[in-house]
This record gives sequence, C-alpha cells and structure tokens, in this order.
Amino acid sequence: MYCKNVLITGGLGFIGSNLARRLVELGNKVTIIDSLIAEYGGNSRNVHEIKDKISINLSDIRDAHSICETIKDQDYLFNLAGQTSHLDSMKNPFIDLDINARAQLSILEACRKVNPNIRIVFASTRQIYGRPKYLPVDEKHPLLPVDVNGINKIAGEQYHILYHEVYGIASSVLRLTNTYGPRMRIKDARQTFLGIWIKNLLQGKPIQVFGDGEQRRDYNFVDDVTDALLLSATSEDAVGKAFNLGGPDPLSLKETAKLMCNQIEEAEFEMIPFPQNRKAIDVGDFICDYSAFSNAFGWQPKITFEEGISKSLDFFKKELEYYL
Amino acid sequence: MYCKNVLITGGLGFIGSNLARRLVELGNKVTIIDSLIAEYGGNSRNVHEIKDKISINLSDIRDAHSICETIKDQDYLFNLAGQTSHLDSMKNPFIDLDINARAQLSILEACRKVNPNIRIVFASTRQIYGRPKYLPVDEKHPLLPVDVNGINKIAGEQYHILYHEVYGIASSVLRLTNTYGPRMRIKDARQTFLGIWIKNLLQGKPIQVFGDGEQRRDYNFVDDVTDALLLSATSEDAVGKAFNLGGPDPLSLKETAKLMCNQIEEAEFEMIPFPQNRKAIDVGDFICDYSAFSNAFGWQPKITFEEGISKSLDFFKKELEYYL
Repeated sequence: MYCKNVLITGGLGFIGSNLARRLVELGNKVTIIDSLIAEYGGNSRNVHEIKDKISINLSDIRDAHSICETIKDQDYLFNLAGQTSHLDSMKNPFIDLDINARAQLSILEACRKVNPNIRIVFASTRQIYGRPKYLPVDEKHPLLPVDVNGINKIAGEQYHILYHEVYGIASSVLRLTNTYGPRMRIKDARQTFLGIWIKNLLQGKPIQVFGDGEQRRDYNFVDDVTDALLLSATSEDAVGKAFNLGGPDPLSLKETAKLMCNQIEEAEFEMIPFPQNRKAIDVGDFICDYSAFSNAFGWQPKITFEEGISKSLDFFKKELEYYL
Repeated sequence: MYCKNVLITGGLGFIGSNLARRLVELGNKVTIIDSLIAEYGGNSRNVHEIKDKISINLSDIRDAHSICETIKDQDYLFNLAGQTSHLDSMKNPFIDLDINARAQLSILEACRKVNPNIRIVFASTRQIYGRPKYLPVDEKHPLLPVDVNGINKIAGEQYHILYHEVYGIASSVLRLTNTYGPRMRIKDARQTFLGIWIKNLLQGKPIQVFGDGEQRRDYNFVDDVTDALLLSATSEDAVGKAFNLGGPDPLSLKETAKLMCNQIEEAEFEMIPFPQNRKAIDVGDFICDYSAFSNAFGWQPKITFEEGISKSLDFFKKELEYYL
C-alpha cells in the first residue's frame, strides 16, 4: 500500500496507532477518527511521533454525519473503533450496541452512499465464539457469545459481509485474539488482562491470575496483527470473508504470568479466586485456528510471546507515565 | 397455562392476537403492548372479539420506560413485537436495529431489574440462517443472514439466551418459518408473500410467482404456532434454548400457488421474473428441520396447508374490509 488515502477509525487506540505508524512509513496519507473516550484505548501519546504526518479527526463513530464527510475520499478504511470491554458491555449494553453495531451500520451506509469503491477491513474478535466446543476454534465454530459485546460484534461483522454481498462493498473481517504490544491500554484490564499485568509488573506489584491459571490463551504481537490487516486489505480473496488470527504458542495463564515475571527482577504473581462477574463471562481455554488465513495469504506470526513481551516491557518502561 | 398474567408484545399483530385469543380462552389475564405502526402487522380488528377481556397498552417497545412498568407483574412474556420486513430492513436498517435488537435489550434489562422471575418466549425467524447450506435446516446450521433483518434478529435472540445464562432469566427462543392464517397482514408482502396472494385471490387478481417458482418453502398454520409458543413457555427443558418450527409438507412456490388457486373459482397465477431488490435477499429453497422441538416436546403441526389456507380464505372472505 503506497500513496493511498487511508482512514483508521479508532486510530488513536492501540492497534490503530501501530497501524497508522506503519502506513505512514509506507508512504500513505493517513486520517484518524477517534473519540478519545476515557475508558477506551485512545491515547494521543500513541501518535506523538507521527502527529505532523497524519490528520486527526476527533469525533465519534456514532456521529453518522461527520463520518460521511470523512469517508468520501478514502481508498481504504481500517474500521477498528469499538467498545472492547466485556464487563462494560454487561454494565452498559446500550453503549456497546451503539458503538459496535449501530455505528458500524452507519459507517457502511456512508460508504454505500458516498464511496462504494472503498476497501474495508473490520476488526472483529474471537469473543464472538464464546466458550469453545472444540479446540482450536476455526471459523466454522458456532457463534455462542457469552457477553453483550460478543453479540454486538457479530452484528458488526455480519453487516460488513452483508454490505459486500448485497451492495458489492469490498469488506473483509479479521477476528482478533489477545493482541498485545507497545501502545496497548495498560491502565486496567479493559482490553486484555495482559495490559494490567504489564502495568503491575512495572510498578512492582504482583500480578493476579484468576482461578487455577490453567486456562490457555493465544496471543498476537501487534506488529503481526498489523501485517495481517495490511494483507487483508490488499488481498482480493479476502473480500466478503471473515478470518481468525491467532498465535502458534498457546500458553496457560500461569505460564504466561511466569514468562512475564521472568523478564522483571523480583516480579511475582499470585493466584486468586475468580471474581464472580468475570466467571460468568469467562470462556475457559481459548485457542484460535488461524490456518485458513495463513494458507490463503501466507501470514505467519513472526514474534514469539517472549520477544513480544520483552519489546512491550521495554516500551512501557520508557513511556509508563503516559499510559497510567 | 391458567390464571396467569401474560404480556404479549406485538399483541395486536397476526400471531400475537391469535395467541391472545387462546390465552383468554384458557383463562389468563392478557396484556398487550403494540405500537400499531401502520406498515407492521398490528390491527385493532384482530382483537375486536376479546377486547373487553384484555388490557391493551398502545406503546412502542422502543420506549424503555413504559415497558418497565408493564413488565412488573407479569408471569409470562411472549415477546413477538418486531420489524419483520426483509426489504424494509434494507431501506431503513436503523429502524430494524432499534426494534429487533435495541428494544429487545431494553425489554431484557427491564426484566432483569423489575421481574427476573418472568418466563419469556421470544419469536425469532428462520431468516437468520440465510441461504441454506443443506436441507432441511436444523439449529446447528450456520447463521448467514442475507439481510439486515436477519442480523438484528440474531442479536435479539442471542440477548435472550445470554440473559438466561448470565442472569438466570428463563427465556426460550422459537425460530418461526412462514406462518399464515386468520388475522395475518395481507395488505402487502411485508410479512410473507402468502398475505398478498390471499388478498389478490379474494380480489380476483392473479397472484404472482417470482422466478421459476421451483423454490420450496415450508409453512405453519398459526394455531400450530400458538401451540408451540405455549409449549415452549411451559416446558422447563426449553429454557435457554432456540428451536426451529416448521411444516411437514414443503411445497414449491408454484405448487403453493396452484393449491391456493384451487380453492377460489377462476383464480390463476402468473410467473414473473424476480424483482432485483428481492433477488438480492432471496434464500432459494428453505425447509426447516423441526425434529429437535418435536422430539423434546411432542409438538406436531396438525393443520395441512390445504386446510389452513381454506380456513384463512374463509376468514378473510368475511373480514376482508378490515385488512385492506
């Protein structure tokens, strides 16, 4: 991708800002839409090194009017804005619905009306599968979400596929697993528990593992996800389809905690019982089968979890003050 | 069910009003919520014989406040209100979203807050499956909706299942196929093509079959659906689950048209090319596998299509003026 007009919704967030940096390096004209809602992932610091090379449009994707203007001249749309907290979706289901479903519909309606030739990649989540019936979870796994967020994300991605089928708008969907890396939200566990773990490690606090810690998870370093987003946007065969991402080395939460503690002197973790509100929406073991995407487009995650965590800790050691 | 407080959303509509009559006969105290939106199925005539025995609350399920009051003292909720037109959902996707997803969430939030012991049956649709990958379509079939309505109905039913799993609210889901019978909307094809066919037959106009007429469909007479709704509401084993309904005798559209024409002197049908906007969201052959519901609860449709259409035509011959 080179010399293109590229719009990123949620572009001040974790994945969006890493993608923006990459797109700028590649020589594209990047516009970001972000609402900087305090509890979400947006953070101006995420783009401080590239802020003179991009356009930043502070607005909310729920504002159907302004988004229509912004979409007009874009070649690509990386549609990453979303409410990502599972717990928040249970506390405020309507906000989750408005952002993850209604706003997606208005983005697609805008594309249909003012820019039907735009190329879209929508960031979905493995959360839509719910508790796995089998492992690893491939794209044929039934969708059995365990929280309002999962339900609304299904609607969001299905609108994208539908607008391709009915109106020919070239959309692709990637279902992300636990993505981590520089610029992630570490204030709390809203994006992933890895965030709060990184913060606690750097502040010399023990990290907390819920339950017996045997639940397995797969992880993707953000640069690998950025690769996947770009591949998806530039591959004709990805149009109208939804693919899983995933990592090659699933780890139990306890193993994850150990690997992370190894990188910080005197760091330690503690096992605590599952908080009730988390237990109700926990999915147990989760490992994604990403072979469909890998076979079709040659994508392979390149960064091991140890490398990735090391890069992340290095980043946040320097930048901690901007992420608390 | 006897001597219970029963709320029916969409109770002035086709299925809702037939259910209300049955519930009144059985000796229950029925309250209806309906907005009487002109294009939807609500029609005051549907309850004229029972109107002194029920409470009618004209309000919109999108009004989260009034619904909360009405839900308070109910033992049962038959949650039938919805936007059912596939074409309308493409023209006005936000209205469809607000009614079929957002309002469902506010109904469930109201139950959670003021009446968590209520027993709910939610009317979903076979439209959520989209174009069948195999026939007959059972509940394991992937959900691949071909219109916005299908996507939003998925969200609506998933909220019901989720609120059972997380909050213990006893909800069941029935996925309805083409339901027909007395009191259906026949003004236009918004509910099913059978409606407009009945009207045209009774007005001496030819009925129109799209395409080659070989697309097969299954049908349920409304009394059989009412049976299923009551069974679902009173069966412990239906809680937290979604079941298909369906009919034993799938017919092609051409066969359907012939059978219907046989019942009216000099009636005829004509084959016309598929209108473009319908083609894009047509699903081809569709036959539901309803064996799961049948095996679990002993439900069997009792009325053949010929009997059912005969009853429907008899009804509308007398009542036509109220349904045009």
